[in-house]
Amino acid sequence: MSDDIFFMKKVFELAKLGEGFTSPNPMVGAVIVKEGRVVGIGYHKKKGDKHAEIRAIEDAVGHLEGSTLYINLEPCVHQGSTPPCAPVVAQVGIKRVVISNIDPNPLVKGKGVEYLRSKGIEVLTGVLEEEGYFLNRFFFHYMKTGFPYVIGKMALSMDGFIADNRGNSKWITGEDSRKYVHRLRGNVDAIMVGKGTIEKDNPSLLPRFIYSPRLPAKVVVARKPFNNFDYQIFDSEGIVYIVTVKNSKWRVPPNLRAKIELVEVDGLEDGTIDLREALIALGKKGIQSILCEGGSFLMGELLKLGLVQELVIFYSNLILGSGLKPFSGFSLAIDKGIKDFKLYERLSFQNDTMVRFLKND
Amino acid sequence: MSDDIFFMKKVFELAKLGEGFTSPNPMVGAVIVKEGRVVGIGYHKKKGDKHAEIRAIEDAVGHLEGSTLYINLEPCVHQGSTPPCAPVVAQVGIKRVVISNIDPNPLVKGKGVEYLRSKGIEVLTGVLEEEGYFLNRFFFHYMKTGFPYVIGKMALSMDGFIADNRGNSKWITGEDSRKYVHRLRGNVDAIMVGKGTIEKDNPSLLPRFIYSPRLPAKVVVARKPFNNFDYQIFDSEGIVYIVTVKNSKWRVPPNLRAKIELVEVDGLEDGTIDLREALIALGKKGIQSILCEGGSFLMGELLKLGLVQELVIFYSNLILGSGLKPFSGFSLAIDKGIKDFKLYERLSFQNDTMVRFLKND
Repeated sequence: MSDDIFFMKKVFELAKLGEGFTSPNPMVGAVIVKEGRVVGIGYHKKKGDKHAEIRAIEDAVGHLEGSTLYINLEPCVHQGSTPPCAPVVAQVGIKRVVISNIDPNPLVKGKGVEYLRSKGIEVLTGVLEEEGYFLNRFFFHYMKTGFPYVIGKMALSMDGFIADNRGNSKWITGEDSRKYVHRLRGNVDAIMVGKGTIEKDNPSLLPRFIYSPRLPAKVVVARKPFNNFDYQIFDSEGIVYIVTVKNSKWRVPPNLRAKIELVEVDGLEDGTIDLREALIALGKKGIQSILCEGGSFLMGELLKLGLVQELVIFYSNLILGSGLKPFSGFSLAIDKGIKDFKLYERLSFQNDTMVRFLKND
Repeated sequence: MSDDIFFMKKVFELAKLGEGFTSPNPMVGAVIVKEGRVVGIGYHKKKGDKHAEIRAIEDAVGHLEGSTLYINLEPCVHQGSTPPCAPVVAQVGIKRVVISNIDPNPLVKGKGVEYLRSKGIEVLTGVLEEEGYFLNRFFFHYMKTGFPYVIGKMALSMDGFIADNRGNSKWITGEDSRKYVHRLRGNVDAIMVGKGTIEKDNPSLLPRFIYSPRLPAKVVVARKPFNNFDYQIFDSEGIVYIVTVKNSKWRVPPNLRAKIELVEVDGLEDGTIDLREALIALGKKGIQSILCEGGSFLMGELLKLGLVQELVIFYSNLILGSGLKPFSGFSLAIDKGIKDFKLYERLSFQNDTMVRFLKND
């Protein structure tokens, strides 16, 4: 393993410390190395806070002359919520900068590298580029497409059911898996479910068991209005976006108007909601990532439309024999099945196996 | 890690070299250690061949005085297809014997240890006992219960189906998974399926892609006779047991009488076959282990009766939306679901995840 790869891996570890806190900014870590020794580290904690390279430079004061900066994202050249970083990097004595990913933000995109080179600094880009992309896959996908990065999450029995035949899904998986799901919730900008899930399970859709000062938004896809508003999502903290059709009959009670925002999009011919338009609308509100937790109809629709980038599936040790299946609304012959997803990683939680699939590019 | 554990792990690795060849004998490995150095190794290759400890002793000639023998199974004291081993061990200079499992065979069961101690040899038993039990789980289960150890194997789509709605299951999983299944086939005494699987898929039920001089028997559970005998199982090598009810209408054609053996058991009130009796009958024929490959009805029946000791499930990256479920014949509420199995291990094959579940004792 080359030094560049060795130190870039440390950069990723630092960047990940900001997971769940940095959105809409990406996670960024920085390490400053002089003559083979780390002399300064930093990571971006949250929007508005100092950037990673500035923290690392401050940490390395006195040892910067002739040093190398490792950072997973190209230093910026524009005035954002903090001043541009590249000019700082160029004037403190750093002689080499090693970067994983170019910043896709059109205000930066290569300009940071160009600036540093114009100041006589040696710049290497693309080190562990794929790992860097995975780390900030929400940010990159959103920047590239305008769509939020959608993760479909399901808990299945060993034999493939999300609930028994009475619709009861408490609990398919064990406690450790469920805790991990709360971590997933804490890392996204929004949690999405269909109307049926609210009516049947009345979830709070909030992360629990994990420090989450930045609460994810709640998104409910519901063509028709609820009969009432006595649901946990309206009692608990944070905004609720209701995705519905234009000219819907939703009447939000005055006491909930600060909490509920209708996202009205076109209805399709078959009476369903245009989910593509809905995601674009949510993206425009700054939502870069969505964890979709069901139900099976919404999951199936998103999947058919190619709007899901990642599937996180928990397979438990419970056997039901029969029950509700994870996706509804389609039935494919084996040679026409969806094969867009590749296995990315597996984790174990007690008797459960979590499998993460990523959509092929 | 103590020396005893370190060397017992080597013993297991040696024993495993006999996997698929030793039945009805267990897999056994042996290592002889003198002053911290391995001076001899051996493993049992197949029934009738020398036992592992004899091979190791022969390998260590000249270095046996004061040595320690590590072996996963208690040395035997009875005359089997080879002479008893304990007396040999006792007279070559070995001063200490470290054993993982006591031999459950009533002809041995503790008598080997007793014999060695009576000759002044220090004996330690129970080292990595659970790992030793797992290694020879077929043998131990069969010795203890008289029932063959049944492994249920299934290949599921990501969303939990064994076939599409037309019944087509070729191919749910990738090539590497399918190759691994042939290895599983090569390690058991018999492969079992229901009649419907033969009629629909016409499989050969033989291991392929792997050297298998000892072919597993083929078992078909079929209450009613086939319309004809034009199936691969009758064309290919090896015996076919047909499990059926007493006084069934099976008429085996003369040219197949050497190949087909009817195993006639009682029919139950609901018209199904008494699978418990069937397994005992197969056990009496020396079948210690069975790989059950479907269909869903047979799998469901075996599961309901508590006759399955292990489940090996492949989850692929294919999405079907709808299809055939793995177990038929029952539908349980979530709090009454079968929770008898615990996660033992996971393996990856390309985009497939294999999960092995073992029945709780």
